Amino acid sequence: MKKVLTLGEIMLRLSPPDNQRLPQANSFNLVFGGSEANVAAGLANFGIEVGHVTAFPEHDLGKAAVSHLRKNGIDTTFVKFLPGRLGVYFLEQGSGLRSSKIVYDRANSSFSSYDGSDENWEEILKEFGWVHWSGITPALSQESADLTMRILEAARKCSIPVSGDLNYRSNLWKYGKSPDQIMPRLMELTTHIIGGTRDFNQCLNENFQSLKEAMPFAFQHFQNLQMIVNTQRIVHSASHNTLSANAYTKDSSISTESIEIQYIIDRVGTGDAFASGLIFGLINRKSIQESLDFGLGAAVLKHSIPGDVLIGSEEEIKEILEGKSGAIKR
Amino acid sequence: MKKVLTLGEIMLRLSPPDNQRLPQANSFNLVFGGSEANVAAGLANFGIEVGHVTAFPEHDLGKAAVSHLRKNGIDTTFVKFLPGRLGVYFLEQGSGLRSSKIVYDRANSSFSSYDGSDENWEEILKEFGWVHWSGITPALSQESADLTMRILEAARKCSIPVSGDLNYRSNLWKYGKSPDQIMPRLMELTTHIIGGTRDFNQCLNENFQSLKEAMPFAFQHFQNLQMIVNTQRIVHSASHNTLSANAYTKDSSISTESIEIQYIIDRVGTGDAFASGLIFGLINRKSIQESLDFGLGAAVLKHSIPGDVLIGSEEEIKEILEGKSGAIKR
Amino acid sequence: MKKVLTLGEIMLRLSPPDNQRLPQANSFNLVFGGSEANVAAGLANFGIEVGHVTAFPEHDLGKAAVSHLRKNGIDTTFVKFLPGRLGVYFLEQGSGLRSSKIVYDRANSSFSSYDGSDENWEEILKEFGWVHWSGITPALSQESADLTMRILEAARKCSIPVSGDLNYRSNLWKYGKSPDQIMPRLMELTTHIIGGTRDFNQCLNENFQSLKEAMPFAFQHFQNLQMIVNTQRIVHSASHNTLSANAYTKDSSISTESIEIQYIIDRVGTGDAFASGLIFGLINRKSIQESLDFGLGAAVLKHSIPGDVLIGSEEEIKEILEGKSGAIKR
Amino acid sequence: MKKVLTLGEIMLRLSPPDNQRLPQANSFNLVFGGSEANVAAGLANFGIEVGHVTAFPEHDLGKAAVSHLRKNGIDTTFVKFLPGRLGVYFLEQGSGLRSSKIVYDRANSSFSSYDGSDENWEEILKEFGWVHWSGITPALSQESADLTMRILEAARKCSIPVSGDLNYRSNLWKYGKSPDQIMPRLMELTTHIIGGTRDFNQCLNENFQSLKEAMPFAFQHFQNLQMIVNTQRIVHSASHNTLSANAYTKDSSISTESIEIQYIIDRVGTGDAFASGLIFGLINRKSIQESLDFGLGAAVLKHSIPGDVLIGSEEEIKEILEGKSGAIKR
Amino acid sequence: MKKVLTLGEIMLRLSPPDNQRLPQANSFNLVFGGSEANVAAGLANFGIEVGHVTAFPEHDLGKAAVSHLRKNGIDTTFVKFLPGRLGVYFLEQGSGLRSSKIVYDRANSSFSSYDGSDENWEEILKEFGWVHWSGITPALSQESADLTMRILEAARKCSIPVSGDLNYRSNLWKYGKSPDQIMPRLMELTTHIIGGTRDFNQCLNENFQSLKEAMPFAFQHFQNLQMIVNTQRIVHSASHNTLSANAYTKDSSISTESIEIQYIIDRVGTGDAFASGLIFGLINRKSIQESLDFGLGAAVLKHSIPGDVLIGSEEEIKEILEGKSGAIKR
Amino acid sequence: MKKVLTLGEIMLRLSPPDNQRLPQANSFNLVFGGSEANVAAGLANFGIEVGHVTAFPEHDLGKAAVSHLRKNGIDTTFVKFLPGRLGVYFLEQGSGLRSSKIVYDRANSSFSSYDGSDENWEEILKEFGWVHWSGITPALSQESADLTMRILEAARKCSIPVSGDLNYRSNLWKYGKSPDQIMPRLMELTTHIIGGTRDFNQCLNENFQSLKEAMPFAFQHFQNLQMIVNTQRIVHSASHNTLSANAYTKDSSISTESIEIQYIIDRVGTGDAFASGLIFGLINRKSIQESLDFGLGAAVLKHSIPGDVLIGSEEEIKEILEGKSGAIKR
Repeated sequence: MKKVLTLGEIMLRLSPPDNQRLPQANSFNLVFGGSEANVAAGLANFGIEVGHVTAFPEHDLGKAAVSHLRKNGIDTTFVKFLPGRLGVYFLEQGSGLRSSKIVYDRANSSFSSYDGSDENWEEILKEFGWVHWSGITPALSQESADLTMRILEAARKCSIPVSGDLNYRSNLWKYGKSPDQIMPRLMELTTHIIGGTRDFNQCLNENFQSLKEAMPFAFQHFQNLQMIVNTQRIVHSASHNTLSANAYTKDSSISTESIEIQYIIDRVGTGDAFASGLIFGLINRKSIQESLDFGLGAAVLKHSIPGDVLIGSEEEIKEILEGKSGAIKR
Repeated sequence: MKKVLTLGEIMLRLSPPDNQRLPQANSFNLVFGGSEANVAAGLANFGIEVGHVTAFPEHDLGKAAVSHLRKNGIDTTFVKFLPGRLGVYFLEQGSGLRSSKIVYDRANSSFSSYDGSDENWEEILKEFGWVHWSGITPALSQESADLTMRILEAARKCSIPVSGDLNYRSNLWKYGKSPDQIMPRLMELTTHIIGGTRDFNQCLNENFQSLKEAMPFAFQHFQNLQMIVNTQRIVHSASHNTLSANAYTKDSSISTESIEIQYIIDRVGTGDAFASGLIFGLINRKSIQESLDFGLGAAVLKHSIPGDVLIGSEEEIKEILEGKSGAIKR
Repeated sequence: MKKVLTLGEIMLRLSPPDNQRLPQANSFNLVFGGSEANVAAGLANFGIEVGHVTAFPEHDLGKAAVSHLRKNGIDTTFVKFLPGRLGVYFLEQGSGLRSSKIVYDRANSSFSSYDGSDENWEEILKEFGWVHWSGITPALSQESADLTMRILEAARKCSIPVSGDLNYRSNLWKYGKSPDQIMPRLMELTTHIIGGTRDFNQCLNENFQSLKEAMPFAFQHFQNLQMIVNTQRIVHSASHNTLSANAYTKDSSISTESIEIQYIIDRVGTGDAFASGLIFGLINRKSIQESLDFGLGAAVLKHSIPGDVLIGSEEEIKEILEGKSGAIKR
Repeated sequence: MKKVLTLGEIMLRLSPPDNQRLPQANSFNLVFGGSEANVAAGLANFGIEVGHVTAFPEHDLGKAAVSHLRKNGIDTTFVKFLPGRLGVYFLEQGSGLRSSKIVYDRANSSFSSYDGSDENWEEILKEFGWVHWSGITPALSQESADLTMRILEAARKCSIPVSGDLNYRSNLWKYGKSPDQIMPRLMELTTHIIGGTRDFNQCLNENFQSLKEAMPFAFQHFQNLQMIVNTQRIVHSASHNTLSANAYTKDSSISTESIEIQYIIDRVGTGDAFASGLIFGLINRKSIQESLDFGLGAAVLKHSIPGDVLIGSEEEIKEILEGKSGAIKR
Repeated sequence: MKKVLTLGEIMLRLSPPDNQRLPQANSFNLVFGGSEANVAAGLANFGIEVGHVTAFPEHDLGKAAVSHLRKNGIDTTFVKFLPGRLGVYFLEQGSGLRSSKIVYDRANSSFSSYDGSDENWEEILKEFGWVHWSGITPALSQESADLTMRILEAARKCSIPVSGDLNYRSNLWKYGKSPDQIMPRLMELTTHIIGGTRDFNQCLNENFQSLKEAMPFAFQHFQNLQMIVNTQRIVHSASHNTLSANAYTKDSSISTESIEIQYIIDRVGTGDAFASGLIFGLINRKSIQESLDFGLGAAVLKHSIPGDVLIGSEEEIKEILEGKSGAIKR
Repeated sequence: MKKVLTLGEIMLRLSPPDNQRLPQANSFNLVFGGSEANVAAGLANFGIEVGHVTAFPEHDLGKAAVSHLRKNGIDTTFVKFLPGRLGVYFLEQGSGLRSSKIVYDRANSSFSSYDGSDENWEEILKEFGWVHWSGITPALSQESADLTMRILEAARKCSIPVSGDLNYRSNLWKYGKSPDQIMPRLMELTTHIIGGTRDFNQCLNENFQSLKEAMPFAFQHFQNLQMIVNTQRIVHSASHNTLSANAYTKDSSISTESIEIQYIIDRVGTGDAFASGLIFGLINRKSIQESLDFGLGAAVLKHSIPGDVLIGSEEEIKEILEGKSGAIKR
């Protein structure tokens, strides 16, 4: 099966236990997370070999972050130790009508100073069959944008499929570039784009009214593009969402059913779980419908798991998709 | 903005973690709480200056209770250290079809021995623009009833608005007086009464069939009365309630919409959060409708927060009222 | 009131806290549990005198298991200390669309080596008025099947009612006997059978399409049989079930209403809670309808309580059955 | 072996975890404890049958206190449910040069209202072979003093040995009687007194300079007295004590060696562990030297165990006395 | 009594529980700490009025830091909300022969951007009678150095005593200035310097072999200097230190006895506790010997308290100094 | 640097938190451990590449055990999933004069059924430069003995150094063979034996009075033997040991100094830490003295770290050996 390369920042995630608000906290639960590494962990969970490109400061918490990757079965050959901080994010888990809340403290991370110029990515990618990136990385710094560009151009040269989750974040992009100066070229190098209307608009500085409207533009401008994938989430409350997904190729459009998700335990990383399920399906040459469904099931399952990372079997996901989950499995 | 004075007992609240029943507990989570101090904390949370009148024993837990007030930004100038106990209440959090359960152990508290005769309340109230009390205080002891009376009469002399939450508790009133011997005079000194039909009946020894029936009586007998406010709660289960509120003036009646609250984390202090939101609105010269809505939103938010005390921003409450809460706030 | 004798294995139950999946666990919460001992604890909770027959290894955890029984008010006169292990089961609590999951590690327990030949059960049962067993015990080992047989035959000789929860488990029955070699004789000695269609089919090696079909067979072949009781559970998700129960005598069929159970905290032991409520009713000469309802209410309440064991009062259960639970009980 | 009857109050003990001071606590660890019940638990731990006389309020925490007794193997036949509170004590564990600190909140307990006039103690004591009381009980209330008197007089009539731990506490004796009005008669009824010079002086209103000086007086005035036992504790710090014990009969004086105790985990209940070890030895007709040594070893072991109650085997205590403890026991 | 003004950064302190090393952590205990605010909290603990000058980012953790100050009774009038981060430090508690370890992540804090030019410090200091600063502040940034200078010059103009803890940290001073460019002037404005030989050498770019050698230089060059104070710590292990203190005036030298501290629970903040005890003594016009002893006792006590902040009474400290601590205080 | 191969069973270690005794536990802390894997983790901690040969059941806890190895940087290529259990051991941490206590529950593990006949070890060992085994493995089962034999014979053929920790455990060797039937041949294949007099006597069925006496025998009979290493531990209490080590070659004897270890946090795995330090030294061609010292320092450090596994840097160990540890490292 194809080995996957992912790249991106990993942060220390600190969240108060037991539904406490941030100002009530006397302790924090600690996990490590980052969109692309979450995808990597999800893929490794399904048995796919994955390597992750990232950088950490060389102190005890940087080393603990490496252990996090190793524990999840991710190849850490491409982890660098560089000066700088380990980014932190404080997560207040919402519940019912109280929203979840994130306070980021990620500026000046070791990762954001890494531009990837020390490696021959074309050489490295010979061992890999898929690359996954997200729009968070080029939003961090010029170096991070350069790193993404280097790896994506190498992937293109090696004719490897590239999935990219646009993941637009308004509180990033603070290093002097706007998304439309960077993202179009990266999207051009990408074969599978995950994103919604707002992502496309922000990345391309357009004003599409819907994804349907954005698609012709995308398939026209981005020659390597094979598929656009999007998830729809209806937020009833922090504990209750409805989720579905669509995939679009030049000629076809595929949809999943909607799944109602109640009793949400951890909303973070559910989009990453979706991406890992989708990529797992595509790598295994499942149909688009099957891959999209599997991505949706993976995302749904992740809502019930504390932490950033998906843990679960194909069988569990299938039971969710078939509406058969819930009974005790002995 | 007007400074608010509140008065009342603060207890040590002990509750088993992780949905345990009381007999299962190997540890208790510890917070401090009391109806009127909860209102004070809610007001301080919204940026209102508040001072609280209470008394504690002079041991480490009494001092910890003072720290609780200070932490919440409440002025502790009027906290006394007196002989007696710190009242305790054991709270078993309910869930689903299992009700929450409280075991009180509050007799002989330091607070219940304090009659307020050591202070010149008229002088003190010169710095304040609002007084809030609840029916729990005069139910504790003759001294507590006297304390309430002293402060309310001073407030009347200073022409300061006085809000009172009738809060009838059948397991109190054990010091030889019945509510109707004490409450009518206190209600007479109150401008904004929070209470329902049962509260009015118990406090006045009447038998009104509805609040509508009680109102003419109240507006006739209580000359300072400007407003009666009441919340309606439909209890589907310990985790699922529906809440709305009404306000009545002599001439008008104002209602909020109903909000359905699921995944309740902590039911205690929600009425106090309502009062703090309402008073915050009224002090800020918002309309009755706005104030009532804001009180409702504050109460709804409190259901998602562990502990006795509301923590949250005006913006969060507005999002709840507009049905827009639930998504992650980054 | 009649003293009850129960028999069966008790295991160490280890489960990760805070909705973690098993591979995420850094700690386990520890309780003791076993179907029949859970019934015993439920009965003791309602004030019935109960003795439990079981065996443990004589180390600190075996002794802790005895303390568990004593703490719950169960007579431990018939607890043996024997070579072997203490069985363990690892429980991953499900939530929402993620199922609960149990990993058993119970082979070679001390209990499974105990055949009860050291006691004169007829003599012992003079002090008892009811015996309860489950189909888990004869599924463990020949010794355990012999133990069950010995006690049930003694009960028959003493004309004591015997309730048996068929509780078929496909991952047991590994000692060389199939259920239909053992269970028919045990069912013949039983007056009150708890079980569904699948249980009957597995135990009797039949292929009934419904309980209705199985009943004539059962009442014909099992001469002591007075009642067949069954619960219906609709699993919406791991956090949301609907539960009802039916009882059948030769001539009549009694049903409860369905109760919808949301916000489930612990699904394990709910069938045992049902059995304890039912037996409590029958022992107290309540009507079948009342007993069945009470069993249902006990089962519903158990869903809100962490651990294997029911804790709750008759009053609480009545409030649940009357749809009146949920408000704070002060 | 002789069954032992103990009597006394049991309190809820609440202590902050992890060496926190009381004002730092966000949670409390919860155990139940009381001097005499601790002795009972220690005896049960050694395999002695024990019954304990006490009273609790009939709420969930009162019931939990009963479970505490049952869990420890103590017969609860003589536990009453009476109006009143459950006494509470807040324990701040000391460490190094910071002393442990206790805040008592025990007034008006259910136990303190029980005078034992409802039972025929002479009849009851037919089943028992030893009675143990402490000076805390008569210090609580007239009723508690009466209860003690009733049981001790019955014991005398039954010629049963009675051990009494004088345990003088200056913060008790608040009900209008001084120790010397009550204690002399109780001491007269006691065969084995545990106490030091200060205890004797306070109880008898004397001014002995040493136990040596007090002894002739005691053996002369208290006709049933067979033995006076005392422990010497040198307090180097809250984590480091040196302990030894002496026993005196009319004719002889027996001493243990001194044992240095470091890394103290819980100082509370160590005197009670001593008493349980001593009584265990005497009941088993060991020599005074052996009994005293065993009491000392039990006390030493208790310093390493969190909670009020001794848990440990005879073998462990012997290893401590022989200086052989410390290696891993596999 | 004199009101004290302190200034300095406050960080989020995160430390793994239960003696875990940083890479083992699954959760962090959370407190707030900073050298000067620790001194402020210590003074408030002794009943001194204190105000603290600092700045935080205006997010939930910044607000929680303000609550920390308020909870400890510190006046927060001079707390600013400014752009930037909240500094973090990760503390791994040592034990035995394993050293404690701190990973700092404090660059770019809100505090480090605050230069105090927005306030009229001479005006403000009219309400104060003592100022305390530490060498950490001017080591952070030019703005922080300016802030310190502004307040110290104002204090000099108001003739208020100023204590300064040199507290040299080699991993700071990264903004382009060396200590000897900044510290001499600040020391000149200081009346009571706390520091050792290494501190003097680093701050003055000298090479004194001992404090004795540095003193003539200091008293000659710093005209306002009244006292140099220093603590000596012998580190036997992370759990076992010996501590003493010396004070030097122009004409005299005063020493405490050495106190051996075992079973250390938290080493952080012990120097700050010393400073608070010393200042408390000096403000109360105790003798230098008494003040120095009290400072030492405060430092010793702090070693037994988790967190950054001293909690304890004068009486407790006196018992430590008299060698009388360790027994249970009931 | 040489890659190391280790082999052996890994168990789930469950221990009560906070110094609780086993019967007090309401939760267990969970780590994974096993003598040889602990050595592997220690080596990986020092940067050595290590692969571990073991087997687990294929359920969630087996997978978690693999994650444990990966997290610690150990190559899991040679981990098998086989039928059987995951062994468990319950560890009660001792303290002061209370010994630590282990209850094993390891029979019938997946590992014990693995005989290694499925692999070509000579081929595999081409990539490795050192093999480490312990006497626990051949004591488990014939299959485990065979596995050890296969790997050791392959190592001999490849002329790879083999270290073996005799680690005699009297509660193993239950499969019908006595140590002297198995161990002599394994020792013959070993170049570096770690063991004491008792180990030699049990393994060889001899009765040597000292290691000095055993050595000539060993060097004569075991042709590959280069070194015998032994640690001496003086147990003052569970919290206080003194440790030293000796190494013997045919011609020389090397000793470390003794290090006194107080405030012990976790005694388990300290011998394994020693082995990892020693092997690390030898692999790096340090002198025997240096290697032995480093092993001792690693062992000493491990006493301060919770869990089975050493975490620490060479620098930390050097500071311990130089007596310089204890101060805060910032």
